[in-house]
Amino acid sequence: MRILLINPNTTASITERVTQLAERVAPDCRFTAATGRFGAAYIASEAAAAIAAHAALDAFAHHFEDHDAVLLACFGDPGLAALQELAPVPVVGMAEAACHQACLIGSRFGIVTGGERWGPMLERFVAQIGLRDRLAHIATVAPSGGDIARDPAAAMATLQAACLESVQGGADVVILAGAGLAGLADDLALPVPVLCSTRSAVTTAVGLARSRPPKPTMGARAATPAVASVGLAPALARWLGDQATRPVIANRK
Amino acid sequence: MRILLINPNTTASITERVTQLAERVAPDCRFTAATGRFGAAYIASEAAAAIAAHAALDAFAHHFEDHDAVLLACFGDPGLAALQELAPVPVVGMAEAACHQACLIGSRFGIVTGGERWGPMLERFVAQIGLRDRLAHIATVAPSGGDIARDPAAAMATLQAACLESVQGGADVVILAGAGLAGLADDLALPVPVLCSTRSAVTTAVGLARSRPPKPTMGARAATPAVASVGLAPALARWLGDQATRPVIANRK
Amino acid sequence: MRILLINPNTTASITERVTQLAERVAPDCRFTAATGRFGAAYIASEAAAAIAAHAALDAFAHHFEDHDAVLLACFGDPGLAALQELAPVPVVGMAEAACHQACLIGSRFGIVTGGERWGPMLERFVAQIGLRDRLAHIATVAPSGGDIARDPAAAMATLQAACLESVQGGADVVILAGAGLAGLADDLALPVPVLCSTRSAVTTAVGLARSRPPKPTMGARAATPAVASVGLAPALARWLGDQATRPVIANRK
Amino acid sequence: MRILLINPNTTASITERVTQLAERVAPDCRFTAATGRFGAAYIASEAAAAIAAHAALDAFAHHFEDHDAVLLACFGDPGLAALQELAPVPVVGMAEAACHQACLIGSRFGIVTGGERWGPMLERFVAQIGLRDRLAHIATVAPSGGDIARDPAAAMATLQAACLESVQGGADVVILAGAGLAGLADDLALPVPVLCSTRSAVTTAVGLARSRPPKPTMGARAATPAVASVGLAPALARWLGDQATRPVIANRK
Amino acid sequence: MRILLINPNTTASITERVTQLAERVAPDCRFTAATGRFGAAYIASEAAAAIAAHAALDAFAHHFEDHDAVLLACFGDPGLAALQELAPVPVVGMAEAACHQACLIGSRFGIVTGGERWGPMLERFVAQIGLRDRLAHIATVAPSGGDIARDPAAAMATLQAACLESVQGGADVVILAGAGLAGLADDLALPVPVLCSTRSAVTTAVGLARSRPPKPTMGARAATPAVASVGLAPALARWLGDQATRPVIANRK
Amino acid sequence: MRILLINPNTTASITERVTQLAERVAPDCRFTAATGRFGAAYIASEAAAAIAAHAALDAFAHHFEDHDAVLLACFGDPGLAALQELAPVPVVGMAEAACHQACLIGSRFGIVTGGERWGPMLERFVAQIGLRDRLAHIATVAPSGGDIARDPAAAMATLQAACLESVQGGADVVILAGAGLAGLADDLALPVPVLCSTRSAVTTAVGLARSRPPKPTMGARAATPAVASVGLAPALARWLGDQATRPVIANRK
Repeated sequence: MRILLINPNTTASITERVTQLAERVAPDCRFTAATGRFGAAYIASEAAAAIAAHAALDAFAHHFEDHDAVLLACFGDPGLAALQELAPVPVVGMAEAACHQACLIGSRFGIVTGGERWGPMLERFVAQIGLRDRLAHIATVAPSGGDIARDPAAAMATLQAACLESVQGGADVVILAGAGLAGLADDLALPVPVLCSTRSAVTTAVGLARSRPPKPTMGARAATPAVASVGLAPALARWLGDQATRPVIANRK
Repeated sequence: MRILLINPNTTASITERVTQLAERVAPDCRFTAATGRFGAAYIASEAAAAIAAHAALDAFAHHFEDHDAVLLACFGDPGLAALQELAPVPVVGMAEAACHQACLIGSRFGIVTGGERWGPMLERFVAQIGLRDRLAHIATVAPSGGDIARDPAAAMATLQAACLESVQGGADVVILAGAGLAGLADDLALPVPVLCSTRSAVTTAVGLARSRPPKPTMGARAATPAVASVGLAPALARWLGDQATRPVIANRK
Repeated sequence: MRILLINPNTTASITERVTQLAERVAPDCRFTAATGRFGAAYIASEAAAAIAAHAALDAFAHHFEDHDAVLLACFGDPGLAALQELAPVPVVGMAEAACHQACLIGSRFGIVTGGERWGPMLERFVAQIGLRDRLAHIATVAPSGGDIARDPAAAMATLQAACLESVQGGADVVILAGAGLAGLADDLALPVPVLCSTRSAVTTAVGLARSRPPKPTMGARAATPAVASVGLAPALARWLGDQATRPVIANRK
Repeated sequence: MRILLINPNTTASITERVTQLAERVAPDCRFTAATGRFGAAYIASEAAAAIAAHAALDAFAHHFEDHDAVLLACFGDPGLAALQELAPVPVVGMAEAACHQACLIGSRFGIVTGGERWGPMLERFVAQIGLRDRLAHIATVAPSGGDIARDPAAAMATLQAACLESVQGGADVVILAGAGLAGLADDLALPVPVLCSTRSAVTTAVGLARSRPPKPTMGARAATPAVASVGLAPALARWLGDQATRPVIANRK
Repeated sequence: MRILLINPNTTASITERVTQLAERVAPDCRFTAATGRFGAAYIASEAAAAIAAHAALDAFAHHFEDHDAVLLACFGDPGLAALQELAPVPVVGMAEAACHQACLIGSRFGIVTGGERWGPMLERFVAQIGLRDRLAHIATVAPSGGDIARDPAAAMATLQAACLESVQGGADVVILAGAGLAGLADDLALPVPVLCSTRSAVTTAVGLARSRPPKPTMGARAATPAVASVGLAPALARWLGDQATRPVIANRK
Repeated sequence: MRILLINPNTTASITERVTQLAERVAPDCRFTAATGRFGAAYIASEAAAAIAAHAALDAFAHHFEDHDAVLLACFGDPGLAALQELAPVPVVGMAEAACHQACLIGSRFGIVTGGERWGPMLERFVAQIGLRDRLAHIATVAPSGGDIARDPAAAMATLQAACLESVQGGADVVILAGAGLAGLADDLALPVPVLCSTRSAVTTAVGLARSRPPKPTMGARAATPAVASVGLAPALARWLGDQATRPVIANRK
């Protein structure tokens, strides 16, 4: 299996952190890692997320070849629906994957992440994927995911406290959310399971890659209708334009 | 990985059908197959489902040893919450797994299954797991899953038509649902992906088995509170009774 | 009017407690009391409830004759949908009856019951019957319904406090819930009405028995489709099998 | 039991029709019948319903003595919340009672009534009492309830067709709704039960009158806060004014 | 633009307060002010609101001529649907206008108003207009709107505290609600915007008056179906009766 | 009043069309028109919308000076939340404004627009702003908004038919949606009002500009937290970076 791993922020060290964990979790897969070419160093606002959606599409267009799945490695999944429309293979968002997996493990889940603006953004995200009734609690901590990735040890006590807050808020499974927090779930001790969102995304992406669902030819996830564009990277413009000129890989299925 | 596969109806040939597909899907796992000791030959009514929940617990109690996950192989998942409470390892219901996987592949899913009573039963099930907003359509066909398993060829045209009905009802992914329909999804041709519920359940169970989430010690999925009982199989009574007398495997995690 | 009162747990003294109150509430009715032949001594877990659904069907099959209604005397209503499918007369669940009656008396209701696992189980139950928007609060106390039935006096202060908690949570009517708590509502003093769930169930069952609605011949509550079975009590197997061999009473309407 | 039956429209013949059925259904109760002193001859618009709410309060104030319950005999329940606030005894709306009773008899209910404007008005009503998920279908017929009451025979074929439409829309119980249709349910033949809304309201009112819930002293149904008023019937002004000057019956409980 | 401003309570000084602010907000409009001829001095109960709906219709019938819009100046909008059915021009309720405007300014809104009974009444109102998911918090203070209008200075500290409570409850915009509180929003200091409900209603009414939407000829807001009536003010009876005899202005559009 | 009108697609003729109508609707305002510098010629897919969100932010950063409001002139509102976070003044999305205004004019609204992919995208949009219960129907026609703008006459019959479909689907007000359809609503004849989404957005933006709500200092619409970025237009990077270096206008309120 070949998986394209897109970090839509512009910090390469976070891309590396996620990729290293991905390779440990799925040693039999090959991961192509791509970092956003433009946008915020880390994503913790509506504005940064909006730009990151474009950056994710741009990264897809530059790096997608014959991968079997795409993994969007930002909890909040900026650009997910657009990628799912463009790509001929499954696209897995880190938040989407972790939330659905949490529903299989607990009756109501909590989310703990870095960056205080993520609270309402994730509440809206969970509602949008239809899982509001399964969400018990969201706890955000002040350091952003980027801060935590730089010095994880300094954040562990805060994250442990936030997870407990989610449990008290009714969660019987907690998602430790965000690319910057990749791998930290193992070091927490809680009375309920803690999911690492990176790990959830990797196992979900591998599973979907194996099942090889065909690209739909109708509905919301059929290929993007062709449209002329200006000012985009040529690689991306090609994915938006006539299907005849799109990368040939798009039609393999 | 060792997985306990429970068919809560009492027809061994369906258990075999599901197990054979499971072994093809996950050749590196060992499956222990268990068939309900009492109840209906196949499940297509509220009454049959209610009895099957007890039969699933009974099968669990008789067969669970050091398995890494439990797979409940009836689309509708009778007894799922109770099994998740009892078992020290992840328990995956065929319907729950397929519905969550469908959400990753399409924006709204359809369900096609055999047995007309399943319509309102599955509508309620989907609402209960919180996915009502993602459900586009349920189509039931007259032959039951048991009938279809006996003569799949005779049912294919009907199933194909029902799947198209779901697509017209707004589904951009369709679940071909039920143990009796295991493996038939491959023979359908639709403009959107078709998921085989058995395949979804197997890959989900294997994924959760690998992630080895710890048994929660609080909340709705902590171990069942001890209670005295009468008239049950001794193996099951032991799982309900004092934790001291429960099978030692229950405490391994 | 003749009413079959089924206690799906296996503790006969609770059956007696409920029956005595039923006879006081509806002195012009005759009650046939049935206790579960197998399962938990009292029901305070998912596992015990799953088994109790089967036990309720079994009790129905053994005791139903020419009754005018069936009363399922466990707050949480294990097996209710299955009984409604099987029985040719109205089947009233204790929780269903009390919740709907509470909606006529207050704008939002609370539930107070014994056994801490009931919290999420009842939250799901209320959602399933469509009344989530009317539910203000659920308060569970540590002693189970069985414990409370054995020594009601010891529990009154705890129950009173839990009821006040529900009122502070927005309830303007409170249900004192569970067969084991039958009759205790009269001894509480609150600023809002307190419903005894047994009393609600009895008056509802008597009312429906009087209205004599016909057995539907289509839809979710039409007679159970015939299915072969193994390992069940013959009386129950007969209710699942061919309609020709079902007890003749099933067709009287 | 003494029950005050309020018809909030201004057509006395409908009041009589409802009262006669009420007396047949509950021969051991005494009914005081009151007809609106002002407003529309029958209620089939938002404007007529708004005025009827006032007329219902006015009728209550003129006729309430030591009744044990109040029955508001218009399907749509204009003024129900206000009456429940004023009255020291249970107030039962015809629509509220029938909808909750229908939930005990079927999984999803339909409503059939006269007057085409009632469609969206009742959809909103059902949502407001929290039962939207249980509502399958509303079918309105062109003749108003007043028209039907004048010549029931002429309407039966239309009503039968509308009921079947509700069944095809998913209802497994149908409410024949409206004071003007009192008693007609018995003459319909359907594969599912048909509830007469008058009969439901009467049995519900009698049941609540018997249970004698105390008037709450806090919350949405505590006594109306005192307020000065102008231009109202003195009897009604007294119920709004200082509690000291309210009819003494208001404090009996 | 000519706007009919209806205060459905019976306190003329509140009508004046609202009208003065309206004239400041929309100096290019002419306002016709009407006060309820009957009912409560101020509205802070279900009973007072029910009567006020009738009073609002009565005021409309007496004062409507060739106005371009109607403004219903009571937060809670008693009689709104009925007025929208009757009137040939847009009718704007104070609560409806303010809640929708708040949704444009913040992600979730709070409501602060006088009179403790308004809490559940407004919660139901917001749900009824479909905005429950956007409502963060309702805070009521003990003095009624009438009390506050008589001595605004005395209430400012209480209102400021209640607004902060709403902000802590998740509101990022707060509505200072009620005719009696007209103009007080300017004197509060909060970290989020505070909307004056009177100001919102005026600007919304002026905007709709300018857009001049035609009277629908079908659906829930088409002209009220004709019905005979008794006991009403002749002006109102005319609006309910045959369309031929309705005020000619009703047909201008 | 000065209003920044942003068309986030890259077709200047559509910007002109919208601006001309805006100037007719609000002749006393000055509009600064900005067209997307990059992205699709018109927006009718998830991918085009994702890029347009970035283009809208970019246009804002390049053109915002001392405007009193921002109008985002694409029905679907790409980038709305991000703009609301960045901008110190109200930002009005065309879809958000029209949907809320429709709720004031009818009980349930329909949407008619060009481009078939918009159907599920707008369904999700309406749910996200909390108005799902008010939405009756969405009808998309095959020509895109860009196509319609080029030859409106050719599309009128199709649009008229689509509007009638919405009315039959329960809408009592219809939104003619999209920048490309600006001004066409006047030429349709329907039994219910038809809103032009451009007109709704302009009047809403002018109204909010007049009310001058302060920029919140806490919550989801407080100023964007500062973050470093790469690869963005310097003007946009400045709005994301340290608040000290942001355009001074951002702090005027």
